[in-house]
Amino acid sequence: MELWFTERHTPYVNFSIKVERQLYTAQSEFQRIDVFESREFGRFLTLDGYMMLTEKDEFIYHEMITHIPMAVHPNPENILVIGAGDGGVVRELTRYQSPKCIDLVEIDELVIEVCRKYLPKTACRLDDPRVHIHIADGLKFIRSCENKYDLIIVDSTDPFGPGEGLFTKEFYGSCYNALREDGIMVNQHESPFYAADAAAMQRAHKRIVECFPISRVYQAHIPTYPSGHWLFGFASKKYHPVTDFNPTAWTLLGLSTRYYNAKLHRSAFSLPTYVEELLRDVEPQ
Amino acid sequence: MELWFTERHTPYVNFSIKVERQLYTAQSEFQRIDVFESREFGRFLTLDGYMMLTEKDEFIYHEMITHIPMAVHPNPENILVIGAGDGGVVRELTRYQSPKCIDLVEIDELVIEVCRKYLPKTACRLDDPRVHIHIADGLKFIRSCENKYDLIIVDSTDPFGPGEGLFTKEFYGSCYNALREDGIMVNQHESPFYAADAAAMQRAHKRIVECFPISRVYQAHIPTYPSGHWLFGFASKKYHPVTDFNPTAWTLLGLSTRYYNAKLHRSAFSLPTYVEELLRDVEPQ
Repeated sequence: MELWFTERHTPYVNFSIKVERQLYTAQSEFQRIDVFESREFGRFLTLDGYMMLTEKDEFIYHEMITHIPMAVHPNPENILVIGAGDGGVVRELTRYQSPKCIDLVEIDELVIEVCRKYLPKTACRLDDPRVHIHIADGLKFIRSCENKYDLIIVDSTDPFGPGEGLFTKEFYGSCYNALREDGIMVNQHESPFYAADAAAMQRAHKRIVECFPISRVYQAHIPTYPSGHWLFGFASKKYHPVTDFNPTAWTLLGLSTRYYNAKLHRSAFSLPTYVEELLRDVEPQ
Repeated sequence: MELWFTERHTPYVNFSIKVERQLYTAQSEFQRIDVFESREFGRFLTLDGYMMLTEKDEFIYHEMITHIPMAVHPNPENILVIGAGDGGVVRELTRYQSPKCIDLVEIDELVIEVCRKYLPKTACRLDDPRVHIHIADGLKFIRSCENKYDLIIVDSTDPFGPGEGLFTKEFYGSCYNALREDGIMVNQHESPFYAADAAAMQRAHKRIVECFPISRVYQAHIPTYPSGHWLFGFASKKYHPVTDFNPTAWTLLGLSTRYYNAKLHRSAFSLPTYVEELLRDVEPQ
């Protein structure tokens, strides 16, 4: 017998992983949650059938969404993480000394429970005393925050279903207000390659550029996401992600990473010409 | 009816493309050759069932294997291209004024014929008067060349089947001898992500490092290759790919590109930590 998980990356492209067994499946109030065991990727989590993370390549996504802003902000003490119930972002954040308070806002409590049980490699630091878990809609949670956070990491799903509100202009405006005067927001920014993903990327970029004085996009190779070419947004009130980055200071922290490094930090912001053009098309002239 | 092409990226990972129709299939003396028509990727060419190029993303591979060395060498006049019967590398090379002679060595004449007929977007410049097509085994062809070329581009298939000889130490040594005193060799260098590809990458790197005084690896996002994370090798007798690169001079050429640009040139050599480690593992200490 062969058991295969398939995700439709577009109506004409399938990505399939051979599965040893299904470890968990349930329908929560918000979405279908599955965990599978595979030879190639170890365990992997899907929400509504979309790949969220695999044990083999989650380090790329979590390092790149976390270390880039942490290496730019000189003293990130108060941090808000939206989504990210799998704990991967929190795991990377808690490796730093600077955070005093990490608010984790996840809409679906069951995601956290499932990840604690089945994905301990990512959920391993959710009990850090600095981490405060809020089961809430990120869009609503942030409305009441003002001038509070040094860093907001938006670890959303795709812009449909439960994650849809995290791609709206209202949400980005609320993030702006929730940040201190030198605050940074980083978000998962979809992909430039397939048409529907590129359109979502352009919509998000247009809205972020309208809210923040500094807005740059950076990239990483994430093999289990559609096309493998994934983007992140870096939006900021004060710090520039490259010119305000101090590679020596970050290197002196002595953190061991498998994807991110100080040289790659700058390079991740050098985008292919066609991606630059897609972004420029939605920036104000 | 649905018709799907599937490539097994590993024994546990499939990548599938919905096909409108098969345009061509034949068994040549060396390999099975197929051309398909698809909605997502336009036409695509496979050899022995492995993806060689699609009309949608071939620009990434061909720009990155061509413009990086062309932007480093100050005056590449004599160029050898091995493999590349699809004409994509030649198309990019012929956009420059400097080449006086481009030798294209392809082992399988039928690949050239098929690409001329079914893939005119890549094969469009094979009739440029500077291009000389040799139907020959690259490994044998290069044995008789000495101090002849400014640039050798090794656009090989994977290191098994007809392309196997293009990954041997003998071949890289012959390339070294065939290059002038400031010559550059660039090769497709497999991928770091899946175990078998990473092993092939390490083997190639070890052999190239042993032959050339300067050897660096650079990367690109190529969605239709396994994991989407693809590498190229830059081996050189004299020029360093980053410090000897003059971005202003290249930009002044006024070439229009969709992936490559002067900023990305430098960044492509900043590799993820795990890739740097894989390479370092096979470099002499």
